[in-house]
Amino acid sequence: MKVSARNLIKGKVKKVEIGAVNAEVTIEIAPGVELTSIITKPSAENLGIKEGGDAYALIKSSDVMIAID
Amino acid sequence: MKVSARNLIKGKVKKVEIGAVNAEVTIEIAPGVELTSIITKPSAENLGIKEGGDAYALIKSSDVMIAID
Amino acid sequence: MKVSARNLIKGKVKKVEIGAVNAEVTIEIAPGVELTSIITKPSAENLGIKEGGDAYALIKSSDVMIAID
Amino acid sequence: MKVSARNLIKGKVKKVEIGAVNAEVTIEIAPGVELTSIITKPSAENLGIKEGGDAYALIKSSDVMIAID
Amino acid sequence: MKVSARNLIKGKVKKVEIGAVNAEVTIEIAPGVELTSIITKPSAENLGIKEGGDAYALIKSSDVMIAID
Amino acid sequence: MKVSARNLIKGKVKKVEIGAVNAEVTIEIAPGVELTSIITKPSAENLGIKEGGDAYALIKSSDVMIAID
Repeated sequence: MKVSARNLIKGKVKKVEIGAVNAEVTIEIAPGVELTSIITKPSAENLGIKEGGDAYALIKSSDVMIAID
Repeated sequence: MKVSARNLIKGKVKKVEIGAVNAEVTIEIAPGVELTSIITKPSAENLGIKEGGDAYALIKSSDVMIAID
Repeated sequence: MKVSARNLIKGKVKKVEIGAVNAEVTIEIAPGVELTSIITKPSAENLGIKEGGDAYALIKSSDVMIAID
Repeated sequence: MKVSARNLIKGKVKKVEIGAVNAEVTIEIAPGVELTSIITKPSAENLGIKEGGDAYALIKSSDVMIAID
Repeated sequence: MKVSARNLIKGKVKKVEIGAVNAEVTIEIAPGVELTSIITKPSAENLGIKEGGDAYALIKSSDVMIAID
Repeated sequence: MKVSARNLIKGKVKKVEIGAVNAEVTIEIAPGVELTSIITKPSAENLGIKEGGDAYALIKSSDVMIAID
């Protein structure tokens, strides 16, 4: 399946914390560069996400803001 | 200014394309890893974004989806 | 590829309008029930979306609001 | 009240699960076609959502992604 | 119609700029406090938004970030 | 740090409710006009948000919908 969201970045699952409703998933997309994601608990379970496994971060370009120092 | 969005990733502006309404900004956040952002044209101009400059990608954790092969 | 977004709804592409920057894609997900999507023009082209073809609408559950009369 | 979000789809509330903070609401928008929504618990209570009742799913077109097999 | 989004703020339409695809609408929600909105051009036309008229800004609470100096 | 999101509105923190995962923050942006925000609990803690303090609401213009009576 191909998705219209522009940013699909491969990485390793570094941490998965499953709460009552949501799961927080941290993906390392480059050495020392991490992305934190919050998805629903059923989504995390359906995907079978586990620490150390491969995963992609998928982000729509309109959800990426830019900041300047 | 500190912002509540969880992901603040430093990078280099690789490409800026300014259209009539929006601007597409590509940031290299690690060697070979890029994030594409769409912001409004006035935002791009206010920030003074230019190719080769430093910039951050800022993304709320609830806007990061996870995908598995 | 499996994605964490909860709503994946199969349908037929009913209309594709490609503008300078964005594309508006209408998907019929049930007889008489349509969803309108706005994606970037490069995304529409990469996916090879065309009228009459099969496609899925993919929506995060936190992006679905509820309204009551 | 009329809202700028492009997709307003009528359906029946099929399931409401109220958690500590959020509520998960499932709406059947056509026979066998469901949309899952996550809203805050106070929103669910203010709207008086109940299983079997009528409700609309309301979605901005920029929040609808497209996927292709 | 009542909507699940938590923030519904009444104001006056101060400026409407209609482009090829999108419209930028500025609403004054208190003396000197404005909110800028980008909606699609068909949405702006369907709502019949005009400068000087009454309108509401409607924002989901999960789309409001917090920043601190 | 300057951010691409168009709406940056100064206010006073009126209420902070910290739950297991998320925090609900209410900001008064003008007399009698409030914005409710949901951010993650770690974000609220990192920012050191407290009732009575100054804070900004930060909202992307594409996340502001318009409604008309």
